[in-house]
Amino acid sequence: MKHTEIIKILQTEPTLHEITVRGWVRSFRSNRFIALNDGSTLHNLQCVVDFENFEEEVLKKVTTGAAIEVTGLLVESQGAGQAVEVQVNKLAVLGEADPEEVKLTILSPKRHTLEKLREQAHLRVRTNTFGAVMRLRSKLAFAIHEYFQVNGFYYMHSPIITGSDAEGAGEMFRVSSLDSKNPPLKEDGTVDFKQDFFEKETNLTVSGQLEAETYAMGLGKVYTFGPTFRAENSNTSRHLAEFWMIEPEVAFCDLDGNMDLAEDFIKYVIKYALENCADDLEFLENRLLQEEKTKPQAERSEMALREKLNFVLENNFKRVSYTEAIEILKRSKPNKKKKFKYLIEEWGADLQSEHERFLVEKHFKCPVILFDYPASIKSFYMRLNDDGKTVRAMDVLFPGIGEIVGGSQREERYDVLKQKMEVMGIPQDELYWYLDLRKFGTAVHSGFGLGFERLVQFVTGMGNIRDVIPYPRTPGNAEF
Amino acid sequence: MKHTEIIKILQTEPTLHEITVRGWVRSFRSNRFIALNDGSTLHNLQCVVDFENFEEEVLKKVTTGAAIEVTGLLVESQGAGQAVEVQVNKLAVLGEADPEEVKLTILSPKRHTLEKLREQAHLRVRTNTFGAVMRLRSKLAFAIHEYFQVNGFYYMHSPIITGSDAEGAGEMFRVSSLDSKNPPLKEDGTVDFKQDFFEKETNLTVSGQLEAETYAMGLGKVYTFGPTFRAENSNTSRHLAEFWMIEPEVAFCDLDGNMDLAEDFIKYVIKYALENCADDLEFLENRLLQEEKTKPQAERSEMALREKLNFVLENNFKRVSYTEAIEILKRSKPNKKKKFKYLIEEWGADLQSEHERFLVEKHFKCPVILFDYPASIKSFYMRLNDDGKTVRAMDVLFPGIGEIVGGSQREERYDVLKQKMEVMGIPQDELYWYLDLRKFGTAVHSGFGLGFERLVQFVTGMGNIRDVIPYPRTPGNAEF
Repeated sequence: MKHTEIIKILQTEPTLHEITVRGWVRSFRSNRFIALNDGSTLHNLQCVVDFENFEEEVLKKVTTGAAIEVTGLLVESQGAGQAVEVQVNKLAVLGEADPEEVKLTILSPKRHTLEKLREQAHLRVRTNTFGAVMRLRSKLAFAIHEYFQVNGFYYMHSPIITGSDAEGAGEMFRVSSLDSKNPPLKEDGTVDFKQDFFEKETNLTVSGQLEAETYAMGLGKVYTFGPTFRAENSNTSRHLAEFWMIEPEVAFCDLDGNMDLAEDFIKYVIKYALENCADDLEFLENRLLQEEKTKPQAERSEMALREKLNFVLENNFKRVSYTEAIEILKRSKPNKKKKFKYLIEEWGADLQSEHERFLVEKHFKCPVILFDYPASIKSFYMRLNDDGKTVRAMDVLFPGIGEIVGGSQREERYDVLKQKMEVMGIPQDELYWYLDLRKFGTAVHSGFGLGFERLVQFVTGMGNIRDVIPYPRTPGNAEF
Repeated sequence: MKHTEIIKILQTEPTLHEITVRGWVRSFRSNRFIALNDGSTLHNLQCVVDFENFEEEVLKKVTTGAAIEVTGLLVESQGAGQAVEVQVNKLAVLGEADPEEVKLTILSPKRHTLEKLREQAHLRVRTNTFGAVMRLRSKLAFAIHEYFQVNGFYYMHSPIITGSDAEGAGEMFRVSSLDSKNPPLKEDGTVDFKQDFFEKETNLTVSGQLEAETYAMGLGKVYTFGPTFRAENSNTSRHLAEFWMIEPEVAFCDLDGNMDLAEDFIKYVIKYALENCADDLEFLENRLLQEEKTKPQAERSEMALREKLNFVLENNFKRVSYTEAIEILKRSKPNKKKKFKYLIEEWGADLQSEHERFLVEKHFKCPVILFDYPASIKSFYMRLNDDGKTVRAMDVLFPGIGEIVGGSQREERYDVLKQKMEVMGIPQDELYWYLDLRKFGTAVHSGFGLGFERLVQFVTGMGNIRDVIPYPRTPGNAEF
């Protein structure tokens, strides 16, 4: 019953011993060459059959998409394109794939659009592109865990269902097990959430940060890696209603340390991908080159995929204060020539994607970390600078993708935090536990959030965020 | 600004060079010995101050819970209990902890009940017990990723919000962004979920298995590790409404291979904990011994914590068919003497916790894998045996904890699955994609689910599942 995975077979010397392989037929050429894939690697194993040795009835079932088992000798390949191949002695069809039905699916051997593949998300992982993307996604996730664990961080699971909507990071989904049509009402006519499962109104988390802070103040260095949710009606190629986020949080670490951590972390993960996913990256690089050929010259990327990844590794992230960035933007050509949709007129303006892209792609031509933003456009928990008007916030901006990391040093002073919560209308009774951190042994601490799908997009070169997660959730779409 | 973590300092030879440490004061004894903890390890660093060299005003603030920074020489310790200590030259209080306020919290230096600690879940990670539990939780999570990655599995993220309630694994939480009081209604008076965010009714997932199957049928070997949810009103020490689950799924793998995988996997993870968390395990073992002393002799465990973990490593899991198990139970003393709450009278009975515990703890005295259960008490997707009445299901049962793994070989035959869905009332139109897997290159495949918190409970010896997750969600409780 033992079979060997193709990724291992392709690393094996052709020793003429018998092997058994199982996988799915990608193609069957000239009634002789079966390209077999088992998902362990991008590459197919060539299985050579001598049709005279097999029943026609069996061979007829060896069609694209069918699952088969093949036993034979592993030999040096005669053809180009592969080092080894299998001389098939035994062949069994495990699961057929009716060619007429296959024709109606994305399994049929022709080029399908990414939109079409998205509609059949349960099958798309069987294609080369999605196999490569999802293997990379897996490796990147592991690299993230490895980075933090090796560096002494503890993984913590922030709660997904949260009783607080105080974080103000965005629209939330309500979680309930009350009757949806006739919820129990209180005397004042509002819904009586006391009768709900958790005896209060609950939502899906938008960020695990606040809880991660409680753990950093005990364990020192922690990180989260879990799903987060936004009920925002953004139907773009950059937004998901459900996405995975990584949020490290470090006690005794200031904003400089936080920037160091973000840069070191991202470089580690990208390096890991380059070293461990060479085949899939090569494939995706070529896919992207093909895709870009359909675009006007001006919209094409100047760098190939792996070149872009290496570029990030080899360059220091340029650290620029918000104030400097505003000066650069004010004086910039697109601002003067009114090419920006939102013109930069004065300090305090919130930066739009067009500004971030200008800074990264045109001005500095490298990853940029912007820091010390105006307090007025940032969250209540960010540490106020001595100037009284900026906070110790940072955003890491990447070419093509824009903001990939957002973080800050947290306000560790009880009085300052309390006052800010008052001014910004954050309910202190709900977040008493967050204030407690500033009451009992408070300390400088910092952290950031990295949207995992944005990272996967950057590394795989996929343009639409829906193509880097198995089953994307977007407005109007919760299929599968 | 550079400081060194205590876990590293304690591994360092006392070389008389100066170090800086930051952490929280656990105790300050005789105005001379500070026990400092930074969460990186269970162990405190002893910092010795000569009170004559420091302002009384500063020393007064060195109280339990305060955050301090200490600089000094690392020297060989004169006292027992530690190899090295710091001779403090500089001392700064970073964040005070008012002793009067500390007294009201679990940070006060006395024994608190686990119930009390649960109420202050934002502070409990600063205690020895929860520090140890949460470090172990983190290490176990990493061991799980490492096991699968090293063995060629790909990590996949199953969706959390799901449009299907077809799996029948338990009560679900509804996810919605409709107005909770006045949801839009259809003409027939029911809620018009077409107007909800996803344009249909959606719930939180109870299992990522079905989606994991779609990925196993493309990538070969996959695993999930994510949160799952049950809206069941179970207020027990074994149930959470939100918990993390690991679900491997393997193409071309039958139930025997599935059992091999479960056993190999669990042993790897436990071995990893023993090798990488020796200090925390020793502490938790002693904690458990103390706790057990308060119990009647008969309820105490026969084995200490690490002995129990080694016992799992050293013994093969006993594989027993459901049919054999029923025979054993029928003939058992507690059944004959009517000591079981649910007496075993005939084949087909669902096993209760009392039966599982009898098999594991009294009869076999080792971990047990039960397999080939009656089809009538198991899920629709499990593979029917040739006898027509049992399915290829398996449960791994552990001493003390009961079921830790549940899995099965999946029904790979289109017709059989379809018929079973019909009989069991599973909507086929909603799960058309699941049926598709049996239409296009179907193959034998298997998988299982492991409740992460159950595993953490087993390894840490914590009796209540609420004490192995940072912020437990249970009926009436979604604090923090």
